[in-house]
This record gives sequence, structure tokens and C-alpha cells, in this order.
Amino acid sequence: MRGPKDFLSLADWPAEELRTILARAHELKRLHRRGEPVQTLCGRTLAMYFEKPSLRTHVTFEAGMTQLGGHAIVLLPEQVGIGTRESPQDVARNLSRWVHGILARTFDHALVETLAAAAEIPVINGLTDLLHPCQAMADMQTVTERADLEKAVIAYVGDGNNVANSLLNAIAVLGGTLRLATPATHQPLLAVRRRAEELARHSGARISWSPDPVEAVRGADFVYTDVWTSMGQEEEAERRRALFEPFQLNTRLLRHAPEALVMHCLPAHRGEEISDDVLDGPRSIVLDQAENRLHAQKAILERLLAATR
Amino acid sequence: MRGPKDFLSLADWPAEELRTILARAHELKRLHRRGEPVQTLCGRTLAMYFEKPSLRTHVTFEAGMTQLGGHAIVLLPEQVGIGTRESPQDVARNLSRWVHGILARTFDHALVETLAAAAEIPVINGLTDLLHPCQAMADMQTVTERADLEKAVIAYVGDGNNVANSLLNAIAVLGGTLRLATPATHQPLLAVRRRAEELARHSGARISWSPDPVEAVRGADFVYTDVWTSMGQEEEAERRRALFEPFQLNTRLLRHAPEALVMHCLPAHRGEEISDDVLDGPRSIVLDQAENRLHAQKAILERLLAATR
Amino acid sequence: MRGPKDFLSLADWPAEELRTILARAHELKRLHRRGEPVQTLCGRTLAMYFEKPSLRTHVTFEAGMTQLGGHAIVLLPEQVGIGTRESPQDVARNLSRWVHGILARTFDHALVETLAAAAEIPVINGLTDLLHPCQAMADMQTVTERADLEKAVIAYVGDGNNVANSLLNAIAVLGGTLRLATPATHQPLLAVRRRAEELARHSGARISWSPDPVEAVRGADFVYTDVWTSMGQEEEAERRRALFEPFQLNTRLLRHAPEALVMHCLPAHRGEEISDDVLDGPRSIVLDQAENRLHAQKAILERLLAATR
Repeated sequence: MRGPKDFLSLADWPAEELRTILARAHELKRLHRRGEPVQTLCGRTLAMYFEKPSLRTHVTFEAGMTQLGGHAIVLLPEQVGIGTRESPQDVARNLSRWVHGILARTFDHALVETLAAAAEIPVINGLTDLLHPCQAMADMQTVTERADLEKAVIAYVGDGNNVANSLLNAIAVLGGTLRLATPATHQPLLAVRRRAEELARHSGARISWSPDPVEAVRGADFVYTDVWTSMGQEEEAERRRALFEPFQLNTRLLRHAPEALVMHCLPAHRGEEISDDVLDGPRSIVLDQAENRLHAQKAILERLLAATR
Repeated sequence: MRGPKDFLSLADWPAEELRTILARAHELKRLHRRGEPVQTLCGRTLAMYFEKPSLRTHVTFEAGMTQLGGHAIVLLPEQVGIGTRESPQDVARNLSRWVHGILARTFDHALVETLAAAAEIPVINGLTDLLHPCQAMADMQTVTERADLEKAVIAYVGDGNNVANSLLNAIAVLGGTLRLATPATHQPLLAVRRRAEELARHSGARISWSPDPVEAVRGADFVYTDVWTSMGQEEEAERRRALFEPFQLNTRLLRHAPEALVMHCLPAHRGEEISDDVLDGPRSIVLDQAENRLHAQKAILERLLAATR
Repeated sequence: MRGPKDFLSLADWPAEELRTILARAHELKRLHRRGEPVQTLCGRTLAMYFEKPSLRTHVTFEAGMTQLGGHAIVLLPEQVGIGTRESPQDVARNLSRWVHGILARTFDHALVETLAAAAEIPVINGLTDLLHPCQAMADMQTVTERADLEKAVIAYVGDGNNVANSLLNAIAVLGGTLRLATPATHQPLLAVRRRAEELARHSGARISWSPDPVEAVRGADFVYTDVWTSMGQEEEAERRRALFEPFQLNTRLLRHAPEALVMHCLPAHRGEEISDDVLDGPRSIVLDQAENRLHAQKAILERLLAATR
């Protein structure tokens, strides 16, 4: 059973395929550390389209393509004008004639789906308002560097956003234990939760939700949080700070998870969803997550682009 | 007889040189399809300067340089400040010390001429308000994939803009039949037409103009159109729509050219100069034109940059 | 004795190290002229962050990385959001996981110092309000192509800005004679001058200041000037023009230095700090300075990045 053409949502991918990608990500990291060149994407080109700011996604995909012998082309929205200068379908059809894959970071998840439907080449979701699957793959690599995913307890506290949705998808497909703690009004979307429940019946994943962060983190192996105000929600920032305050990941909350490692997909709003001492403390593995963006995405790129044409 | 240092206008180039470039474009396409690496521009660098949006030009030149073993550097106007931070001559002289060629997309055609005069390295016109020679080379590749250029009848309907000017130049130099249909007020510039007439006397090209699109397309092998409102003319859009309405490329007009293939340099304003059903229909070869930007420009790059030190 | 991890200020670097870098710069230029490939940075990646416009720094670092077998990633402030989206320390820590070096052009010199302190990888100063050390290295290469630095007399007339500060550092570390002529109110910063005096005691450099440009240039071998209004000072332009007028580098001033070669780091404000005839005249070596940015920086990149993991 093979995965789909595109990498838009982990919920579309068979567990076996994701495990193969993760195994390759671990291997690519070892090869990179040893300085062994891997040239599996020679002559391949990736077009990267960013509607929103990006540090991690931009640098890791561009460095990743280069390390694999390929090349990444950066496209800015004002240069391309998707939806104003040219329809997304036409952009996707044109790019299909020249490059081997498209990475897109868009506000609207529907746009990456439209691009993928029109493109003959793979489209990779580099974050939308709905999902962030590449982050979740880096997270799974980071967890499995330290624990057996089947046995690990992962707690996610804060906003049920795109990062939470993709983490939910990852555990639902691959198995494991995920405890979500969010305000009742800010759970992951119902459609995402329903699909995760379906997938969990196959994988045996144990997924739970609670409005109480203490309940979620108690005895957890990993405690994960993300910003309360995602890109595009800046005008709600004030209201969100009040609502999410009880979910801050700080020393007090971590007392209930004395062994837990701390995860965050970055950038962090220091002093909001996470305190400085926790983010910079000895239990923080956020820079490993960031580093693993590089390795996990190189495995994704190999899986999607090496097979093409 | 050799062509000039720069690729600013097809009217400056001998027919024999353009035919050699086109033959190489066809060959580079075959090699690319077979996945055979071509490394003719190893260590060469192209500076690309865009004053206007670009999808096709940017991606095809950057991918093309990479595929030939070279590298493209993207410069944005706000970074370089040509004319504000530094004179075009100084920018051209500086770039001549570091890179092997300059691709420039500018509003004012005089600017690419100024850059070319001051630069010691080749300057390639990536579209100006006057000309779009790289597009015309891709168009010639597309036509000659399907027909003998000498015998083919090409009709261009719509605005006598930069794309029409360069198509006119291409046929005037290489020979063939071009029937232009534009409003009398929007013919290609007089200077361009005069020069085309001169060139046609040598090449035997048959070039005609009519205000009647039906007359132009009757029995044509290729019918070509382009947007009515080019980049930089957005404030005239309303007035132009009324003026150009009779020139829309739609099923009704195509009844007069039952065998014709449909061409457009993209991006298209769907429902303005071309109807959706025609643009997306079985006779449309617009994506082949777009693809051939890659191959034709690689041949141009080889011709200009491989010879330089 | 080895230089520091970062290339922020020439005053931090031992003379012996800088001489080794300069010798390599001369060699890299010869190899480049002969077309001999040098692949000392294969697989290395440089992140380049520009808060201000850049032509020379951008193109020479990107071309330089490519020529050495590596790759440069361009980051724009609005994409990264240093200080707004994410702290400089976090950005530096993240980049340290993916790339081998950071080039930063920032308004505030303190920002490159903050990045360097947090980064595990080398940070290169690509111009700040305080210093421009890469320019000074290219200048030293340009001078030593034509003269013995120990014996040469270099005059700098105009604004005691970042370029003057770095030139002062270069001579203070490496030795030689530097005569500065600036308005008394626009000398290089006191801290920079004090440090230069200290360094000069070791190197034997002869450094002097005068408010009189004629006194400074008399009999000089090289006369150097730079814009009166640096990036970020545009609102003071009018006032500065009046103040600096006596310091214009023109034929009249050059009569006092009949053998002098003319230097300028570019971009020039023609007709302000330098007259057209002097900038474009036979004694101008400004394009050699510009070219040497490429070679000198390749030597700096090799020194900093080849040693890293």
C-alpha cells in the first residue's frame, strides 16, 4: 500500500509508509552527522511558495534539497500572485512542467488542496491554518529518538491549532498515547477529531481530551505546547492570552510530570504559552525538534520526489 | 556571422543563430526527458533582476541554470535600488565582475539597453514594456514541434503588446506567415513594424495586419492571444476590456480556424482575452509553450554564457 | 594563535590570521581567473540575513558560496521576524542546527553580536551601523595588489562611518599609514579610535586625523571616500551635504595627490562625495575593490566554515 501523491495531511498516509519515512529520517540524520554525502535528488527541483513568514520551513527545505543534490526555488506571493495574477490551478499546472515538487505554506488549507489537485507533481503542506504535517513528522522523529512511541505518553496543552491537529493525526495513524488539554472552545476541529478516532481504531492509539492541563500532563513522558496566537490571528491576541493563561507550560505545571521532556514547534512566545526557564531548561528538546525538521523532511522529499519522472 | 553580446531583441539576431539556438532547444528537451544530465554551465552564475512579478521567467531561468550545472541569484528591486540607490550603469559594471550574465525584467525597455551597454557580460531581456524575446523563442520551439515554420500560418489576435512585438520579430527574422488582428489604435509600434518589414524582405516572411480577427484567424494553423491589460496598465483595464471585446479568443472565433492550435503566453485573464473552454480545451498548447520556456532559455543561456570566460 | 569563531570586527582578529586570509584571497582570485574549480565548502550552507539593501554583499557571498561548492540561503527580515516573531537568540540557536554559518547585515551592531553569542556557528558581519569588516578585507586585498601595505599611504576623506571604522581597524591590526580627514564632529567613534591606537602600538601602524582633506591626501598613494549619508540616515542628507562639501573627492583635491589611486566601497552618490570624472577616471580602482569582495569573502568563508563540522 502506497501513500498518496501529496503530503497534505498525515491522515491520508498509511502507517507503514510513515514508519518507513521515519526510519529513513533517523538514517539520514546519522549520515549527516558522519558527513556522508547523500545525493538522491540530483537534478530535482522544489518550488517553495510562502504566504506567511517562515524560518524553519524555509531553511530546512532549502538546505535539505541542497544536501540531497537538488535545488529549491523560493517564490514569494507578490511575485506569483496566486488568485490575483493567475489561478492556483494554472500556477500548479505550469509548475508541473518545470519542477519536481511544490512546497506551499498558505493561510487557507483549501489552497494547498487545490494546488495538489491541479498539479501533476507532489505538493507538500508546509503549514496551513488547518495542519502542519512536516512538523508532526519531525516531532515523531524526536519522540522516537528517546522513547518507544507505543509506550510513550504525550501531553499537548494549549490551543487546538494546526500543530495540535497534525500531532493528533500522527498519533492516530502511528499509535501511542496523546492527551490533549485545551479550552473546551479551542479543541482540535471536530472533523479532525472524528477522523482521528476512526484511525485510532486501527492503530490502537489512545487519545483523550480534557479541559484540565494538570490531568493531561500527569506522569507524561513528553509535554508539548505551541503559541496561543497563530499567524493570522494577531488581532485576537489579547483575548486569547486571558483564555489560555491556565495552560501555560511552566515549572508549576511540570511538577505533575517530573520526568517529562518539553516540546515546542517554535517560534515560542516566551512568557505566554511557555516560561523562559522551561523553554531553555535541561528538559527542553525543542532544538532537537527544530533540527529534525531537516532530517524528517529530507526523508519526505526523497519519498515524494525521487520516485517522480 | 555571430549574434550580439546580449539577448534584448530578436531583431538584432541573425536567423542562422536563432535556428541554431532552436535546434539546441529541441535537443535539450529530449535530453531532459531522458533524464540525461547536461552540465554545460558548471560554475556559471546568472543574476536575475525582477521589477515586475514573474512565475514562468523566474522558475524556468532558475531551474534552467541549475540543470546546466550553474546557479541563479535572485535580486529584488528594493534590495538593489537601481536608479535610486545606484545608477544602472554602476550596477551593471559591478555585476560584470562577479557573475556571467544578467537576466532583467523591467518596465522600461531602455533600462535593459542601458544595463547591456554598461555590462561586460550578456544581458537577457526577461520582458520589458516593449519586447519579450525569450517568450517568442519558446513559441517558435512550440510551433516547430508541430509544423514547418515556413508553411505554418500563425494568427495573433488582441493587443499589439510586447508579446506581439517579439512574435513579429521572430517571424520577420525566421520567415513564416503571421497575421495580426488588433484594434487599429493598438497595433505593434510603428518602429517595430518597420523593422519587421525590412527583415521580412530578407527572410521572405509574410506579415499582415487587419482590424478583423475573423479575417486573421481564417484557416490558421495557430491562433495566439495575450492579455489585454499588461503589467503596469492596470488602471486602463476597464477601457481596454470594451475595446478588445471583439478580439476574444473563444469557440465562436475558432470556428473560422477549425484546425488551429491555441497559444497564449500566460498568465491568462480567463474570460477576458480567452474563454475557459478554449484555454483548457484539447487544442490548447499553452502548457507546452510554458514548458518550452525552460528548454529554449537553456539554449539561450548556453549560447550566451558558455562562451564567456 | 587563532581568530575568534565570528567575523564581526577586524579588531578581534590577530594580524597573522588576517594575513593568511588575504594571501588566500589573492590565490583564490588567481584560481578563479584561470577557471580552476575550488570545492572547499561542498555541502556547506550559509544563511544570509539582510535588514538593509544589498547588491555587492548579497551577490558576492551567494556567488562565492556557489563557487566553493556550497549554497547560500537568502532570508528577508519580514520572513524571519527577528525581534518580533522570534528572539535573535532563538533564531541563532535554530540556524545553528541546520546551516554552517550566518551572514547578517543589520542596522544595529549589537544585533550581530547577539546572534554571534547565541549561535554555535560562525556569524559574519555583512555591514552594521558600526563596522563593515568584509569591505575592509577587500580593500586590503586591493591595496596589496598594487603596493606594499607597510609603505603605502592611505587617505580617507569624508564621513567617519562604518567603512572608515573598519578601514581604521584594518590598518591598526595590519600596519601601514592611514590619514583620516573628516569633520571634527564626524570622526570615527572614540571607542574605535582608542582600540585602534592600542592595536597600532603592536603593529606599528601610523594613524592620524585632520579636519583638512588637503593635508590628508597630500602625496597619498590611495585616496578613499564613501557616501556622506549612510543607509538609515536619509533624513539628515541635506544637512550632511553642506557639512561634508569641502571633503568631496574631485580633481581639485586630487591635485594634491598626483599619484593616488581612488577608492570607494560603492554605491557612490555621484556628485556628492565624489565627482563623476574621478569615479570613472583612469585612477579609479573601485571596481577592483568590488570584485575583491568576492575573493576576500571566499577566503573568509573558507577560514570560518571549512573548519566547522
